[in-house]
Amino acid sequence: MTESPLLSARKNYQLHLPEIFENLASVCFEKEKDTSSVSDLEEIQSLFPHLFGLPLLSANIAKDKKDFPPFRVGVVLSGGQAAGGHNVIIGLFDALKTLNPDSHLVGFLNGPSGIIEGNIHELDREFVSSYRNTGGFDLIGSGRTKIETEEQLKSSLQTIQELKLDGLVVIGGDDSNTNAVVLAEYLVKNGCTTKVIGVPKTIDGDLRNKYVEMSFGFDTACKTYSEMIGNLERDAISAKKYTHFVKLMGRSASHIALECALQTHPNYTFISEEVLERKLTIKCITKELADLVEERSKMKKNYGVILIPEGLIEFIPEMKSLIEELNTLLAGSEFTSLDPSASIDKVRNTLKGDLLSTFEFLPEGIQKQLLLDRDPHGNVQVSHINTEKLFMETVSKELKQRDFKGSFSPVAHFFGYEGRAGFPSNFDATYCYALGYTAAALIKEGLSGYMACVNHLLEDAKKWRVMGIPIISLMNLEMRKGKKKPVIQKALVDLNKGPFATFKKHRKSWMIADDYQFPGPIQFFGDPQITGRPPEVLKLKDS
Amino acid sequence: MTESPLLSARKNYQLHLPEIFENLASVCFEKEKDTSSVSDLEEIQSLFPHLFGLPLLSANIAKDKKDFPPFRVGVVLSGGQAAGGHNVIIGLFDALKTLNPDSHLVGFLNGPSGIIEGNIHELDREFVSSYRNTGGFDLIGSGRTKIETEEQLKSSLQTIQELKLDGLVVIGGDDSNTNAVVLAEYLVKNGCTTKVIGVPKTIDGDLRNKYVEMSFGFDTACKTYSEMIGNLERDAISAKKYTHFVKLMGRSASHIALECALQTHPNYTFISEEVLERKLTIKCITKELADLVEERSKMKKNYGVILIPEGLIEFIPEMKSLIEELNTLLAGSEFTSLDPSASIDKVRNTLKGDLLSTFEFLPEGIQKQLLLDRDPHGNVQVSHINTEKLFMETVSKELKQRDFKGSFSPVAHFFGYEGRAGFPSNFDATYCYALGYTAAALIKEGLSGYMACVNHLLEDAKKWRVMGIPIISLMNLEMRKGKKKPVIQKALVDLNKGPFATFKKHRKSWMIADDYQFPGPIQFFGDPQITGRPPEVLKLKDS
Repeated sequence: MTESPLLSARKNYQLHLPEIFENLASVCFEKEKDTSSVSDLEEIQSLFPHLFGLPLLSANIAKDKKDFPPFRVGVVLSGGQAAGGHNVIIGLFDALKTLNPDSHLVGFLNGPSGIIEGNIHELDREFVSSYRNTGGFDLIGSGRTKIETEEQLKSSLQTIQELKLDGLVVIGGDDSNTNAVVLAEYLVKNGCTTKVIGVPKTIDGDLRNKYVEMSFGFDTACKTYSEMIGNLERDAISAKKYTHFVKLMGRSASHIALECALQTHPNYTFISEEVLERKLTIKCITKELADLVEERSKMKKNYGVILIPEGLIEFIPEMKSLIEELNTLLAGSEFTSLDPSASIDKVRNTLKGDLLSTFEFLPEGIQKQLLLDRDPHGNVQVSHINTEKLFMETVSKELKQRDFKGSFSPVAHFFGYEGRAGFPSNFDATYCYALGYTAAALIKEGLSGYMACVNHLLEDAKKWRVMGIPIISLMNLEMRKGKKKPVIQKALVDLNKGPFATFKKHRKSWMIADDYQFPGPIQFFGDPQITGRPPEVLKLKDS
Repeated sequence: MTESPLLSARKNYQLHLPEIFENLASVCFEKEKDTSSVSDLEEIQSLFPHLFGLPLLSANIAKDKKDFPPFRVGVVLSGGQAAGGHNVIIGLFDALKTLNPDSHLVGFLNGPSGIIEGNIHELDREFVSSYRNTGGFDLIGSGRTKIETEEQLKSSLQTIQELKLDGLVVIGGDDSNTNAVVLAEYLVKNGCTTKVIGVPKTIDGDLRNKYVEMSFGFDTACKTYSEMIGNLERDAISAKKYTHFVKLMGRSASHIALECALQTHPNYTFISEEVLERKLTIKCITKELADLVEERSKMKKNYGVILIPEGLIEFIPEMKSLIEELNTLLAGSEFTSLDPSASIDKVRNTLKGDLLSTFEFLPEGIQKQLLLDRDPHGNVQVSHINTEKLFMETVSKELKQRDFKGSFSPVAHFFGYEGRAGFPSNFDATYCYALGYTAAALIKEGLSGYMACVNHLLEDAKKWRVMGIPIISLMNLEMRKGKKKPVIQKALVDLNKGPFATFKKHRKSWMIADDYQFPGPIQFFGDPQITGRPPEVLKLKDS
């Protein structure tokens, strides 16, 4: 494979580490405080009798310097790509080799199924170095298999024992970290001493808490999307004729949309959490958008940029109810033989009250999608609904009804996959390398069921603080497929303070004044003001 | 408006000029050779009796240094955004002020309609400087009005005379430059001494010839798209489950798709010019793609990246015929009252032979679009056809028929507006600044009907050569709306040599071997190997 000049330069980019890792062998972890779980203490304790109640730990330097035997560690990437994953692996590799040059790191291929099936690749320095500071998860691949069933857990235990692993590092989002601690508990229960450590990954930014200030990949994804949004804004004020509806990846929380809004100041941004709290209907959102289009048009601004989080539809209460009702209705066999328009007629005759008006308000294309595009269980495929097109159509219709005289030319965009696997920003590259070191340090200290944590991220990398967070301390019980399950509580956008409060303060002026910002492409070299720009939501987290 | 740190840094970025402009006042133009037109000499001469046959000019340094009175110049942006447009204006401004500090530059607002209506903005140093090295056309706006009719020409003449302009600089694509010379001829004919100069702008890259090596904006657009394509490729080899169908802006020529292919090495790239030459049918293209998906799937590669130029559909001969036939058919009043499925039935019963089989092969959604989505003249809206989705559907269907056992999950993308108004690359920023200077130099020398030209672009900016190209020398007659019109001949992809030959040599291996390249985001600071990377098609132009 030939290399782009940037690829070569990135590989040689020097990463800084938190100061504490200058003496990795002397790093110890000290108790900050005891922990339990977010809620449902008893149930969670009964599910994790061995690992419940571990202390929160902070790294420090021990007085005595120990020598360490070679470590044997496995690493796995789980779930969707996030920029910086390779650097976690390389940080882990470098740290293990620093502790003892005879240490071994094996990669499990294509996600957790690699653990179950014992599908591995032994990692050496030359191979991992060729991935330094690159995007993607192609070093060992990733996958979405979960290690959940007794059989899967047993196979995993077997692989781990055969490989004689001292540690296993699971790089993944909230679900993957949940699974990591399930496996950790299973190993202890079965007398296996292998330590399991999680690393917080997800571009969505919803794996976040008091200590985990940011999951990795979020920064690069938001900067990539913001580059494009800024470009669209500049195109909009130049061409003065398009309204861009930009859907942004991120199903359950709107952190990405919020971050991009703070970076680019578009005319309108949906925050799903707010839509839910304000119990907004599609009609009412449509009215709000049509008002905006009209108001701007009066100022001869027949253009604009609107951001929509991918998961919005599931946060609109009436849509949630409608979808649930349709799932029940369509399960009835009388629908299977009907053609699309007959189906729509039948649904119209069956639905009542608010559900019927919601259905009637939807564009025909979306109505059909709701009825026809169903998963193997017969459920509506919510993720397939083109939310951006839905609002483009309802707003167009509303404007026609209002006899709007201006021009409204909507253009749809979806920014998603483009942001997951790009070159990590300097922030993500450095952060991930430190996370890899942290995972090694936790394993070396014989700790299991912990999430690697590096915080104080607004400071210089040298001053970053290194911690170990008991994964169970982040968990609560939630309903999943009709059953109560222990899971890491997702961090949603806090509507009362921090980044959202700043957004709320400014959004009115952004609607009208075109305070568009153009962050431009991610820069890797030169002025740290530019190359090291931290995410806005991080800067504003305590505001 | 607050500023991103990158925006501030870009404004202070120092631009280099061709050495010759160190003595701008002494720049003269010397005849390289006589010119006529590309073809249709007699007709074109009769249309442009005053400006036909101007010599091709090359800039040199005159022995005597002259003093110049203040110049009064107007500038207009025409057509779609292209990165660097602001720098043309700033280069022009700086050059005019260098010649005489009392020179004036006025901007015509929102495109050529600003000339017709006399809608202007006087440009001063503080104002234009705040746009240095930025993207977009928002400094004075742009528009698509053409100055064509006698009335429009007359109004334009009036504006120009009222403003007492010495020169007018038209920044635009092939059509806009055609219009510039039409106006130039009109001015001479009417005894107006104002000089009209064109500047070659278009991200499409089809305004190119022996001397104009590249239109501005092409480099930034292709690098922006290639960043995204590279990211998708890295995501594809990581997730190993998606086939990305990427449609790229560019209606009539496939230069953008070719450049992006050379930068990113995707698995398959359509070049419209080749599809036309090989007379490929949709069926045959579908077969080729399905073969590729099958072959890759056998190697466990259930993923890929495919590039599609926006204008492809119009280069598929059978589609062109079908669309022409449908335009005639649908003009018949018997269609207006029919509902979609009745229309489809009627078309089925009317079409014959190959046209019928082409129609039958199309997915239902596309069939409907062909029948329903018509412009005010009743014609099929070719630009609305989702070519990427067309092939996603036909390939899916073909694979089903073949009883394909692998997995095929296509994802559609369109990269267009994102690439037109971003921060110009260092190449475009420097090139455009030099083009602005060149336009000023041509006006100062009393030349009209010329296109500003800067070439030898692969060399260091200091060594770039400055020329004046008679716009008429680029013209031929073409049919437009049933009439022969003088237009600048578009440069299509040459299928016999240069960049396409290199692409052709490698594409077989790119199909299978995943030689994906990751160009990453445009870099502005640091190693010139990275920040000054020229377009691939420029490097390969003489190969």
